[in-house]
Amino acid sequence: MKNTDKQNQMANAIRFLSIDAIEKANSGHPGLPMGAADIATVLYTKFLMHDPKNPDWPNRDRFILSAGHGSMLLYALMYLSGYDDITLDEIKNFRQLGAKTAGHPEYGHARGIETTTGPLGQGIANAVGMALGERMMNARYGDLIDHYTYALVGDGCLMEGLSQEAISFAGHMKLNKLIVLWDDNNISIDGAVSIADSTDQCARFEASNWNTIKVDGHSQYALEKALEKAKASDKPTFIACKTTIGFGSPHKAGTNKVHGSPLGQEEVAETRKVLGWASEPFVVPAEILDNWRLSGLNAAKNRLEWENKYNSLEATRRGEFNRAIRGDLPGQFETELCAYKKQLAAEQPNVATRKASQMALEMINGVVDETIGGSADLTGSNNTQTSQTKSIVPDDFSGRYIHYGIREHAMGAIMNGLALYGGFIPYSGTFLCFADYARPAMRLSSLMGIRVIYVMTHDSIGLGEDGPTHQPVEHLASLRAIPNHLVFRPADAVETVECWQLALQSTKTPSTLALTRQNLPTLRKEYEEDNLCARGAYELLTASDDAQITIFASGSEVEIAVRAHAVLEGKGIPTRVVSVPSFELFDSQPESYRKALIGMAPVKIAIEAAIRQGWDKFIGVDGIFIGMHGFGASGPIEALYEHFGITVEAVVEAAEAKL
Amino acid sequence: MKNTDKQNQMANAIRFLSIDAIEKANSGHPGLPMGAADIATVLYTKFLMHDPKNPDWPNRDRFILSAGHGSMLLYALMYLSGYDDITLDEIKNFRQLGAKTAGHPEYGHARGIETTTGPLGQGIANAVGMALGERMMNARYGDLIDHYTYALVGDGCLMEGLSQEAISFAGHMKLNKLIVLWDDNNISIDGAVSIADSTDQCARFEASNWNTIKVDGHSQYALEKALEKAKASDKPTFIACKTTIGFGSPHKAGTNKVHGSPLGQEEVAETRKVLGWASEPFVVPAEILDNWRLSGLNAAKNRLEWENKYNSLEATRRGEFNRAIRGDLPGQFETELCAYKKQLAAEQPNVATRKASQMALEMINGVVDETIGGSADLTGSNNTQTSQTKSIVPDDFSGRYIHYGIREHAMGAIMNGLALYGGFIPYSGTFLCFADYARPAMRLSSLMGIRVIYVMTHDSIGLGEDGPTHQPVEHLASLRAIPNHLVFRPADAVETVECWQLALQSTKTPSTLALTRQNLPTLRKEYEEDNLCARGAYELLTASDDAQITIFASGSEVEIAVRAHAVLEGKGIPTRVVSVPSFELFDSQPESYRKALIGMAPVKIAIEAAIRQGWDKFIGVDGIFIGMHGFGASGPIEALYEHFGITVEAVVEAAEAKL
Repeated sequence: MKNTDKQNQMANAIRFLSIDAIEKANSGHPGLPMGAADIATVLYTKFLMHDPKNPDWPNRDRFILSAGHGSMLLYALMYLSGYDDITLDEIKNFRQLGAKTAGHPEYGHARGIETTTGPLGQGIANAVGMALGERMMNARYGDLIDHYTYALVGDGCLMEGLSQEAISFAGHMKLNKLIVLWDDNNISIDGAVSIADSTDQCARFEASNWNTIKVDGHSQYALEKALEKAKASDKPTFIACKTTIGFGSPHKAGTNKVHGSPLGQEEVAETRKVLGWASEPFVVPAEILDNWRLSGLNAAKNRLEWENKYNSLEATRRGEFNRAIRGDLPGQFETELCAYKKQLAAEQPNVATRKASQMALEMINGVVDETIGGSADLTGSNNTQTSQTKSIVPDDFSGRYIHYGIREHAMGAIMNGLALYGGFIPYSGTFLCFADYARPAMRLSSLMGIRVIYVMTHDSIGLGEDGPTHQPVEHLASLRAIPNHLVFRPADAVETVECWQLALQSTKTPSTLALTRQNLPTLRKEYEEDNLCARGAYELLTASDDAQITIFASGSEVEIAVRAHAVLEGKGIPTRVVSVPSFELFDSQPESYRKALIGMAPVKIAIEAAIRQGWDKFIGVDGIFIGMHGFGASGPIEALYEHFGITVEAVVEAAEAKL
Repeated sequence: MKNTDKQNQMANAIRFLSIDAIEKANSGHPGLPMGAADIATVLYTKFLMHDPKNPDWPNRDRFILSAGHGSMLLYALMYLSGYDDITLDEIKNFRQLGAKTAGHPEYGHARGIETTTGPLGQGIANAVGMALGERMMNARYGDLIDHYTYALVGDGCLMEGLSQEAISFAGHMKLNKLIVLWDDNNISIDGAVSIADSTDQCARFEASNWNTIKVDGHSQYALEKALEKAKASDKPTFIACKTTIGFGSPHKAGTNKVHGSPLGQEEVAETRKVLGWASEPFVVPAEILDNWRLSGLNAAKNRLEWENKYNSLEATRRGEFNRAIRGDLPGQFETELCAYKKQLAAEQPNVATRKASQMALEMINGVVDETIGGSADLTGSNNTQTSQTKSIVPDDFSGRYIHYGIREHAMGAIMNGLALYGGFIPYSGTFLCFADYARPAMRLSSLMGIRVIYVMTHDSIGLGEDGPTHQPVEHLASLRAIPNHLVFRPADAVETVECWQLALQSTKTPSTLALTRQNLPTLRKEYEEDNLCARGAYELLTASDDAQITIFASGSEVEIAVRAHAVLEGKGIPTRVVSVPSFELFDSQPESYRKALIGMAPVKIAIEAAIRQGWDKFIGVDGIFIGMHGFGASGPIEALYEHFGITVEAVVEAAEAKL
């Protein structure tokens, strides 16, 4: 069935807002908004349950523009539907410094942008996380939460391996309220998709237990029928929408010329003629705009009905729900934490920090219901499961533990989706070395400023025989390099729980906990109410007199520092030990604290079983660094520490040589 | 058909060498070698064209153990077949420091190990690169090169998204001499694969244009038939071999208990009984060993026949072939390079370094036939294609340019495969920000020490409006953190070709070239025969008197340094400018050079549109850093540099304030 004139004009409103904004910015990607305008029109006017005036309403449908370069599609939709943050002025200011309408959709720039997209494949995986979050909230709060998650993806998203991890996970979990719309336009930046790919995408999704539908992406009637079918499916649905990129552009439609460059004045004028759009730039005819706004108002009615449900919740439940959505920790958390720290002071456990992390989690998960654990198939190694965290399985989402499979990248992106969804604090594990696999998602956790906690165990050559492919040496430095990302490397069980506390309390910053495979003694012997790790670095052992030597160390190497301290003090050389669980928190301390902590000892030594990069801030460029200078090796742990010279003897020798 | 006793014993030889070595090391993964022993026996005794005494024979079949944790399978096969490097002593020394038999197979430890595996999914993608290399060599040298590539993969490899990128590429390219054997044992570390995945793997491969076969992985007869069929296919073939992990272990077979831990003495003894293996640990009955060695000798006959073909090659062709395999650059390279540098000195182009890179490549590709270009669907942005590099398409492998699709990770891993294959120098591009997607493969380039060249354009906020998702800020630091990886950030067209020269000449180190989107003037005005970038950092502009200020900068920020130099010298403040194209090469200079270059100026400033991490080695912890302190933003380039304070004015002001 052909589109009506009104349907076409509704879609053209998206097309021309996009075309005009990109033309004005002289930068941007018109191809997708022009090609996907019919899809978006049907979705927003007939299906999407949202309230433009309450963009944070918890039971809204989620819409994720995974193909983030088509950002003008989203901005046009938000303006047309009546979101307050995206005004016509913002659209005119597209891609300018300070605009809410950034080159790619940026979470936090405008209320209603569900996630930051642009790096391909991330959005679809975030959507999987959100669809999972929806089922999990539904399992907790019944039909108070019951909605769909839609994602619009392009060929790039589907070629990225991340998408495979995400779709195989979603199919396995039977996330049937997830609907992925593919802007199937046959065009990539280098030319026809067929120069690089000939995958049968529907067959691929079916192999992962998805329902699939093929549809003419310019027939609004057909799209409506497809979405109706998708909503009725007991599996996630993939709708392949055949579209023409740059639909309406007489000379550029269907080619890669329209992907990432403005059309140019002349082509814009001709496109206006072809599509019958007589309005001036940035003007949407009143009748069309009214229709758009009306659809926003209609969709919002669902929220009013929802308020009744919400108000009928028992007050305590409602309080819990609100607290979880706000992301606050429960009041009892601090109490339990103190009790646990006292217990550690009494027991002085000799455990790996990965084990200490599990012990801490046993306490945390007992009091914080929102934590959702998981691992990329290393549960027994990462020690991420506790007695409270029943596994989530396809037909029962009441659990709190996710078997992500061997999918580190999707794990990160799904955790991003869960954190963005609200009501959850996701944490999950793999080996620190394989942080590299998840890195693009970890970067987005940081850029978005969301509380996602990465539990990275086996954090050095201390993992032993698995060898250099599994031994991180550059990973601490490379993670510390990411802005707005807390990297914690605790030295014992006390520091481990303190770092967990900081990670949980950092609501706008993701964290990585780097944890050992090998056992470590408790070094923090006395109970302290204060969280000493909060300062990033602190004096663990004082010198008997004016310090001649200060030893800085993190994680498993603090033990070496402590033993070297004993040897050096035994020789009459006053020595301090500074434990450095977090560079980032140290950097955020006042200069006075930092200067005093670094101190005046003539010899400064840092020990970390990793590369030096970044340590100069503590020891200066002339300081002594005891650590790694290249890749590790396969062998038993003791042999490796000896071989790479990360020993008490090496520290003492280097210190004495320099004195 | 049931296996004969001899067939079983041939496979048991693999099983017990593995069991015994893992038991002795008290560390390792017995499940895979026990489960996949029948597959490996059939492959090595009936199919694999190799010569254990000439492991580098160019026309050998390649065998890649993508599931690298099953390393003992490979070591057992190599010992049994007669590879000199893997002796019984080495097997007894499994996982010990210095052994050739590392925890995971390490390229370079023993001749015959084709690649380093362990990080999952990498091996299958390397195999795709090798299978592609085979077709490309075949297109160049006819049937002198004509062989198969086999990979053994586990569930982990298949769950990693990287595998999807690799298989969709291989299917598209119709790499029909690639045969992937899946050790389909239903078990992952957390338990049954079904807790995290329910993908129909055969359907998935078929969706990517693969031939698929299902077979009983313990029936040597069935495996033989399957491999015969696979060899006859006109598509790459995926053989799903249903196996029992830890086959033969009475209490642990078929469970995750046998994946990654020694069986334990008692279970080993019982397994000996179950499988009828009476030999002492590390003893293979003479008849079985003889049979294994004989199969190695038989396979080697192919090489003798091949020598005839090789000897009948015309001498010049043979010379070319040998030079390419050795990896030497042709003699004319230096001559052409000099001519090109003279041309630059005459023309002083004002171009982006990504464009300068293309100009350099136009010269390089004209004289070096082995370079194989490519891009992850950003050809026109990365400027990686030149007039000589026709695209490689499924039925014509004579080209020199690969459209990798939007698959950065596979691109890296396929380049690793091509470099390992021999005869090629792969280089390929994406945006620097998306180096994160390829990072695990880039790490392996470094760990293996192979010449793979990553062309990373749009290397800072200089890319402008696309915003923070596309603007690298931490990527230079995080790549510089990887051991044995050269990161180049050239400042103009002259430095760009010098960096290309260094990348090409570094046969045992991969390189990343970080290149600008924006135009830059030529700063190196005079022709110099020497490659100044070879020292990593060098004085670009001298001070008029004893330097009060030294400005260090890389890439696009050297222009700012040069302009600040003019302003400061104009104010009578003697100022030097040091260009820093490569930290790694600077670090490898003698201390005398480093000290002299850093110099004694009381004020030291570094400028880089990225984070500070790593720059302290030049400017000290009290030096002034002009660069980024967090993520970028969306906006036009000029606005961004101004907003983030990376300007001549900021440099001058900071310098004067400190003087």
